[in-house]
Amino acid sequence: MKYGIAIFPGKELQDLANSLRKRFDPKYALIPPHITLVSDFEANNEEIKEISKKLEQVANHFQSIDLKIKKISTFQPVNNVVYLKIEPNVDLTDLHTELFSTLHLEKPTHAFVPHITLGQELSHDQHLDMYSSLRMRKFNYEETADRFHLLYELENGSWTVFETFRLRKDK
Amino acid sequence: MKYGIAIFPGKELQDLANSLRKRFDPKYALIPPHITLVSDFEANNEEIKEISKKLEQVANHFQSIDLKIKKISTFQPVNNVVYLKIEPNVDLTDLHTELFSTLHLEKPTHAFVPHITLGQELSHDQHLDMYSSLRMRKFNYEETADRFHLLYELENGSWTVFETFRLRKDK
Repeated sequence: MKYGIAIFPGKELQDLANSLRKRFDPKYALIPPHITLVSDFEANNEEIKEISKKLEQVANHFQSIDLKIKKISTFQPVNNVVYLKIEPNVDLTDLHTELFSTLHLEKPTHAFVPHITLGQELSHDQHLDMYSSLRMRKFNYEETADRFHLLYELENGSWTVFETFRLRKDK
Repeated sequence: MKYGIAIFPGKELQDLANSLRKRFDPKYALIPPHITLVSDFEANNEEIKEISKKLEQVANHFQSIDLKIKKISTFQPVNNVVYLKIEPNVDLTDLHTELFSTLHLEKPTHAFVPHITLGQELSHDQHLDMYSSLRMRKFNYEETADRFHLLYELENGSWTVFETFRLRKDK
């Protein structure tokens, strides 16, 4: 079964993201707006129990994760993904690193750029349209995440939450 | 903010349900297949913290919930909802009752009929079409749920998981 790990931002930010995703993100209906921490990995029913225990330990090492958003960005020329950029953040980077090392996953070849996807699988024209209309817009969102989620993928490509992990350092 | 409480069955059952929901359930894209425990209630950011603590206590009173499915049923003539019927189950009924009493929610006017919705908002003809094609089909699913989920609704009608509660009695 395919699993992933993500943070769901608060409702306000999710509603904002969805208003933009609706037109530009083919995965709009498959998963709510999120920040991917581990995109996907395979595990069976036994393995996921062990993984779940390990994730609980990881969650005990973090108190909270600040999520600041000031602007929209794009992964072009790598790909035509437009996203809300999460400002650089030591806690978030550390959480990402610890998840990969704890789960013994191969480190991704690209640097970790935390983001909330707004548009993907865009044609050149769609990308230009979306990015040029949004790039000058200023955002000033700030919130604190206190949990992350382990999800699994269904056959139709949608994701179901398997478990929530509250960040519990010093609590 | 509007919250709800539900159990997600395992992937196999969800995939089966989705294969039927795709055509007949307008909420197919808004939430994965689920068993509703509390359909919806309002809570603000402060209240939900208290509610979350209470739900953790409720989860400590249950060990697991058996989910047995043998057939498809309908809520007609009350409404044109077709569903996978969860066989009567003391634990599930007790969990439902305790959730309502713990959260001080008004008891629903209808008896609790645990189910996984497959089709809703159907016209008379659609209902007839769906139910007559499925009612003779025998199902023989059995699994054990060991958690329930607290979710909140976004503006587009989709649901995000806020927290998972593992059933922890005697663990």
